Amino acid sequence: MKIAIDGMGGDNAPYEIVKGCIDASRIIDDELIIVGDEQRVLEALKDHKYDSARIRVVHAQDVITNDDAPVKAVRTKPESSLVKGIGMVRVGSADLFISAGNTGAIMAGSLFILGRIPGIDRPAIAATYPIMGKGVALLVDTGANSECKPNNLLEFGTMGSIYMEKVLGVSHPTVGLVNIGTEETKGTTVIKAAYELLQKSSINFIGNVEAREIPSGAADVIVCDGFVGNVIIKLSEGLAWNILKLIKSKFMSGTIPKIGALLLKGKLSELKKEFDYSEYGGAPILGVKGAVIKIHGSSNANAVKNAILKGKPFVENGVVQIIQNSVLELEEIVRSE
Amino acid sequence: MKIAIDGMGGDNAPYEIVKGCIDASRIIDDELIIVGDEQRVLEALKDHKYDSARIRVVHAQDVITNDDAPVKAVRTKPESSLVKGIGMVRVGSADLFISAGNTGAIMAGSLFILGRIPGIDRPAIAATYPIMGKGVALLVDTGANSECKPNNLLEFGTMGSIYMEKVLGVSHPTVGLVNIGTEETKGTTVIKAAYELLQKSSINFIGNVEAREIPSGAADVIVCDGFVGNVIIKLSEGLAWNILKLIKSKFMSGTIPKIGALLLKGKLSELKKEFDYSEYGGAPILGVKGAVIKIHGSSNANAVKNAILKGKPFVENGVVQIIQNSVLELEEIVRSE
Repeated sequence: MKIAIDGMGGDNAPYEIVKGCIDASRIIDDELIIVGDEQRVLEALKDHKYDSARIRVVHAQDVITNDDAPVKAVRTKPESSLVKGIGMVRVGSADLFISAGNTGAIMAGSLFILGRIPGIDRPAIAATYPIMGKGVALLVDTGANSECKPNNLLEFGTMGSIYMEKVLGVSHPTVGLVNIGTEETKGTTVIKAAYELLQKSSINFIGNVEAREIPSGAADVIVCDGFVGNVIIKLSEGLAWNILKLIKSKFMSGTIPKIGALLLKGKLSELKKEFDYSEYGGAPILGVKGAVIKIHGSSNANAVKNAILKGKPFVENGVVQIIQNSVLELEEIVRSE
Repeated sequence: MKIAIDGMGGDNAPYEIVKGCIDASRIIDDELIIVGDEQRVLEALKDHKYDSARIRVVHAQDVITNDDAPVKAVRTKPESSLVKGIGMVRVGSADLFISAGNTGAIMAGSLFILGRIPGIDRPAIAATYPIMGKGVALLVDTGANSECKPNNLLEFGTMGSIYMEKVLGVSHPTVGLVNIGTEETKGTTVIKAAYELLQKSSINFIGNVEAREIPSGAADVIVCDGFVGNVIIKLSEGLAWNILKLIKSKFMSGTIPKIGALLLKGKLSELKKEFDYSEYGGAPILGVKGAVIKIHGSSNANAVKNAILKGKPFVENGVVQIIQNSVLELEEIVRSE
C-alpha cells in the first residue's frame, strides 16, 4: 500500500517526520510518500540511508500552519502539503494520509476533499486514550463536533467500535456513553436519547460511564460530544503533566529523597512512558471516504513511525467500507424512534 | 454563629462527623448543632470530651441515603437530617448547614426549602479544585445544571467570583470559561454567547480556558455547565487515583525500587495530600437564600472540621446578600443583549 505523510505538519517537521518514515521503512515494505517542500524534505533525508524506491517526495510549495483558520486555509491553499496529501487519498495515489498539522484543517480537508460517507451525518476525530498498564481506549468525538444530536453519538459509537476492532484489535469492544451518572435516566435530553439509540444497535453498548472510570478502562470505546471529548483529552494531558512535574519537584528536594529518586529512575521513566502519546498511533478521522490519521502536533520520529505501523490496518481491514456498510443499520435505528 | 451539621450524611456518619465537630469546637467558639439520630449521635459523642454548651444534638428520625431519588426524598422525608438541617437555615435557627449526604438531595432541598435568590435563574454547586502547590480554583457548576443557557454561565461566573473573594480570600479573582480553544470564536453557540455576557460584567473575566490549563491554575474561578464540570471533577479524581496507584505498583516491584520508595516515603505522602479533598473545605450551593455546603461523601473528621472552619466566612462575609446585590447588574447585562 501507499502511505502519504505530511512532511510539513507539526512542531518537528520536517526532520522528525522524515526520520519516522525512514524508521518505519526499515520495518514494512510499503511505499511512503512524504508530501512537502521538496528541498527541505530532501535535506532532511540526506542525513540518513534509505531505499529511494520506497520513500519518495511529492513537492508541495505551501504549508498550512496552526495559526491558519482551518476552512479558509483548506480553500485558499490548494498547494499545501495537507491539501495535497488528502487529495492523493481521494484520487487513489495514496491509501492513507498521516499529518501532525492543524487539526481543524485536517478535519475540514477530509470533509471537503474526501467527503462524508453517505449516511454518516457527522464525521468525527477519534483519539486513543491510554489506560494505564492496559493498552488504550478510543474516545469519539474529541473536537470535530461541539454540538451533537443523538444520532451523531450513535454514529460515533458505531464507527469507534469498528475502528477498535479492526485497527486496534479488540474483538467485540465495549462501548460506553460519557454521562454524569450511570443510571439510564441521567444527563441531558440529547444524552438520554443517544442512550436509547445505542442500546438498540448491534454494538456491545454497556451503558453510561462516569468520567471517573475512564482512566481505569471503563469501556474500550468512549462516546461523547466533541466538546466533552476535547475536555477529557486536554484535562488528562494537563493533569498527568502536572502530577509528573510535582513528583519531580518533590523527589528532588532533600538529599535522602534524591537518593530515593535515583534508585527509582528506571521506574520513573516507565511511568512517563505510560503517558507518552507517541506510543499509541494517532487519531483517525472517522466517517469520511478515505483513511486519514492526525498525530500530535509535537510528534517525534517515534510517533510518526508508530502512526505508520499502527495505521496500516485502517486500510488493510477496509474500515471505511465497513463503516459504509453499517449505515443501513444506523438509519434503521434512528427511523424506528 | 450557629452551624448545623448533618450527622447522618456520608459513608462515615455519624462517627467521623461527630469527631470533626468536636475537633472544630476546640478551635472556634461557635455553636455546633449536629442533626441526626439522637441516640447514635450521642453514642458517638460519648467517646470524646466536649463542651455541651457548644455542641448540641437536634434529633432527626429519618435519613436520606445515596440511593434515594433526590426530589422525591426531599418531599417524602421531612424528618430526615438533611431536610431538617436545611429547614433550620431557613427559619434562622442555624446560619450554615453542612452535609456529606446525597448531593442531589442537598441541591433539591436547598432549592425547595430555601428557594432561589430572586433574579438567579439557576443555583449551582461549586467545588474547590486543587491546583498543585498553589491552593485551589473554584469550579462552577459541577453537576446541578447539565443544560445551561448563556445567562446561567454568567451567573456561575459572578457567584463563583464572589465566593472566591469572600470565602477563599482571593481578591479580584480571575474567571475563565471552559472552552475547546482560547479564541473568542470557539465553542458552541451557548458558550460563545456566554463569553459575550461575561465580558460585559464587572468580574475579572480573562476569557476562555482550555481544560489542559485547569490543573495548573488557569483561573481562580472556572465556569462551565454542570455536565462538563462533573466530567472535570470526576475525571481528575479518577486520573489522580490511577496515577498514584500506578506509582505505587511500579515502585513496589524490585528490591532497589522498594528501597528508593522507602527513602521517598515522606514525599509520597506529601504527594497524596495534594489530592486530599478533605483539606479544601467542601462545595457551596450558590444562588439559594441561605448558606449550605456539601462535603465529599467519604469525608473523614478532618474534612468535617475543615468545612466548618473554612465555611464560616460564607456567613460572616454575607455571601448570600452580596450575590443578591449582584442580580441587578446581571439582569442589565442580559437585557443589553
